[in-house]
Amino acid sequence: MWSNTKGRELKERALRVIPNGMYGHESTRLLPEEFPQFFSQAEGAKIWDADGNSYVDFVCAYGPNLFGHGYAPIEEAARRQQMLGDTMTGPSEIMVDLAEAFVSQVAHADWAMFCKNGTDATTMAMTVARAHRNRKIILYAKGTYHGAAPWCTPRPAGIIPEDRAAIVYYEYNDPESLADAFKQYDGQVAGVFATPIRHEVFIDNFEPDLKYVQTARRLCDENDALLIVDDVRAGFRLARGCSWEPLGVLPDLACFGKAIANGYPISALLGSDKARAAAQEIFVTGSFWFSATPMAAAIETLHQIRTTDYLEKTKEAGAALRAGLDQQAAAHGFQLRQTGPAEMPQILFAEDPDFRIGYAWSVECLKRGVYLHPYHNQFMSLAHDERIIAETLAATDLAFEALKGTVGSAEPNPNLMKLLAH
Amino acid sequence: MWSNTKGRELKERALRVIPNGMYGHESTRLLPEEFPQFFSQAEGAKIWDADGNSYVDFVCAYGPNLFGHGYAPIEEAARRQQMLGDTMTGPSEIMVDLAEAFVSQVAHADWAMFCKNGTDATTMAMTVARAHRNRKIILYAKGTYHGAAPWCTPRPAGIIPEDRAAIVYYEYNDPESLADAFKQYDGQVAGVFATPIRHEVFIDNFEPDLKYVQTARRLCDENDALLIVDDVRAGFRLARGCSWEPLGVLPDLACFGKAIANGYPISALLGSDKARAAAQEIFVTGSFWFSATPMAAAIETLHQIRTTDYLEKTKEAGAALRAGLDQQAAAHGFQLRQTGPAEMPQILFAEDPDFRIGYAWSVECLKRGVYLHPYHNQFMSLAHDERIIAETLAATDLAFEALKGTVGSAEPNPNLMKLLAH
Repeated sequence: MWSNTKGRELKERALRVIPNGMYGHESTRLLPEEFPQFFSQAEGAKIWDADGNSYVDFVCAYGPNLFGHGYAPIEEAARRQQMLGDTMTGPSEIMVDLAEAFVSQVAHADWAMFCKNGTDATTMAMTVARAHRNRKIILYAKGTYHGAAPWCTPRPAGIIPEDRAAIVYYEYNDPESLADAFKQYDGQVAGVFATPIRHEVFIDNFEPDLKYVQTARRLCDENDALLIVDDVRAGFRLARGCSWEPLGVLPDLACFGKAIANGYPISALLGSDKARAAAQEIFVTGSFWFSATPMAAAIETLHQIRTTDYLEKTKEAGAALRAGLDQQAAAHGFQLRQTGPAEMPQILFAEDPDFRIGYAWSVECLKRGVYLHPYHNQFMSLAHDERIIAETLAATDLAFEALKGTVGSAEPNPNLMKLLAH
Repeated sequence: MWSNTKGRELKERALRVIPNGMYGHESTRLLPEEFPQFFSQAEGAKIWDADGNSYVDFVCAYGPNLFGHGYAPIEEAARRQQMLGDTMTGPSEIMVDLAEAFVSQVAHADWAMFCKNGTDATTMAMTVARAHRNRKIILYAKGTYHGAAPWCTPRPAGIIPEDRAAIVYYEYNDPESLADAFKQYDGQVAGVFATPIRHEVFIDNFEPDLKYVQTARRLCDENDALLIVDDVRAGFRLARGCSWEPLGVLPDLACFGKAIANGYPISALLGSDKARAAAQEIFVTGSFWFSATPMAAAIETLHQIRTTDYLEKTKEAGAALRAGLDQQAAAHGFQLRQTGPAEMPQILFAEDPDFRIGYAWSVECLKRGVYLHPYHNQFMSLAHDERIIAETLAATDLAFEALKGTVGSAEPNPNLMKLLAH
């Protein structure tokens, strides 16, 4: 029987010693109150909360979990390295192996730099772009997420206008808007940030138009600016290289993170020879950027990416989930709005402007052992196999059935309403 | 016999796939060319380079290694958590335990936020300070290091004036300089950054005057600004709490990192209740900030900090090294300039303006199995016991002896000369 006694106690204790009881993208403050904030265990496609409830987890740590928790080949590679040495007075020799592996895996990459956060990689990309021709202006698609540093974090508290004085916003997927920005800042544009797909919270997700992608490349070339694809969230989930490779367009810089070591902490900036001189000029570093264990995990993750059918399997799992949910929703008189790539599906309800239906359904799913996020895109892992999808769909069917009884009395989430009112 | 065949090959390979072959604080570009860039193993106080040469390591991963590599209680705690779950869809319940442990360990701390890089913690501190009273100006002591983000990184490439438009520089240890800055920016100062001790590279290190420390506290109080101690490098190396606690002065915010999990990747911002409301307003996050394994390692590290005599032992080890080196130098006709706390000693040569003597000596040490940094402060770990210090001093004595023969032909390091010319 699902219960959350210990979870509620933990939230109380956390409120005293952690601001808001938790912060950042994994805070459950905007989720239904039943959502557990703290977890005790993870294995394969499943997570257990502090009360011992288990869930098929479709959030996958918000991206990092690509092959399943405790995936043996990667865990073993990490453990072997940990026994030898992790955070030493310099990198392990495997840093060179890892850089070589990225350079051979990702088409545009001639060099690699490793860091810890996705934001490290995007901030380094911005800095390299500015150093490239000693220019200031960064073009940034309105509403896209590129991290949580002062120049890009989505909330204004503690941010000053100077942090974004040289950031110019354009409309994603709109070649004219991009061309206008280049014209307005003629000779001043250092680089263009492009999210590989639109995968923002609360809204429909979508893939870019080819014309926009090609125009971005052309305008960067014509203006000697660097094209930056921020693949932190989508990297290796849509393709075995940069997410724009299947579109035939290569960036100058790409930011990777999240899934590249199946949960071990490492991110990367991958650049072409064109950007190498600028990358050699900047000074960036971090206490743990050169630790060996996450690099060993990343080497094995890249090996798994090259040698398994993880990509096809996660696409199939996403497609099966999507089809099953659509069918169930229709059978119970609901309509979903599923967008984005099936392997990173955004699952919202049609005609649910204040999210009350989606929130109510996600609670019904949760109590039946399925963790589906009500406003963030989901993620698949290789551990999300046919059995797991079947188990999920059995639970979601019951959740839709239960929703029929409760949807009439569903209320919008008050914390969410406060946020959306801003 | 010391050799570096494999190390040189690795450096060649690295040059092709990593900008400059390596970047950041662990790059050996400014060190003598004999210094290994890549390591293969670490245990206790020792590290092994890619050629299999072993060294007593006095750099300790530039700070993280506090109890020795492979220290069993911490490794076991981390391994147990790794088996349960590391990077999940939310933090482990042990995040609450860790925040509680910090709050009871560090005097000013009423709450904790965890992150990955030291720079994450300093950037969060800046953002919290600005959010506190919605002010802009940050006072920053000239020449101190607070990280490698655009607002603080020591090298100008890719940085624009806007990044530092609201940073005002004052003279460390000079209460009048600080008071003048407050006067000049009356009512606009958000916070004051203070390095707990001066521990910059290439120069003598020293501890602050009590008058400066007390004035910083008083001026922050009078002006409703937040006092920030950046304890990333020195935290838990000088005291079992914030480094200014022994001086009787508590900050509002302190940044910790490096040693808090004995090498596992985690950093922290520790704040008082005064700063809590602002901390609740900002949005900061990172893909791996809530991973459980480094938190398990940090909990056990804090336990070791509370229950062992690591602090007294590392102070003794530093004092023994310092005394032994001074004696040997004198016996061989050299004079050292040793500054900073003995447990984080800066070891330079007197009258060595272009560092040629120190560089030559560090190579002689290196070839005899002792890794001493020629321009950065050293670090001790609990594994640097009497036997290790004795082994070290036996080698350094021979290094001084050898130096007598080579010092006449020593040349300044060309890369270093280029840097210092700027």
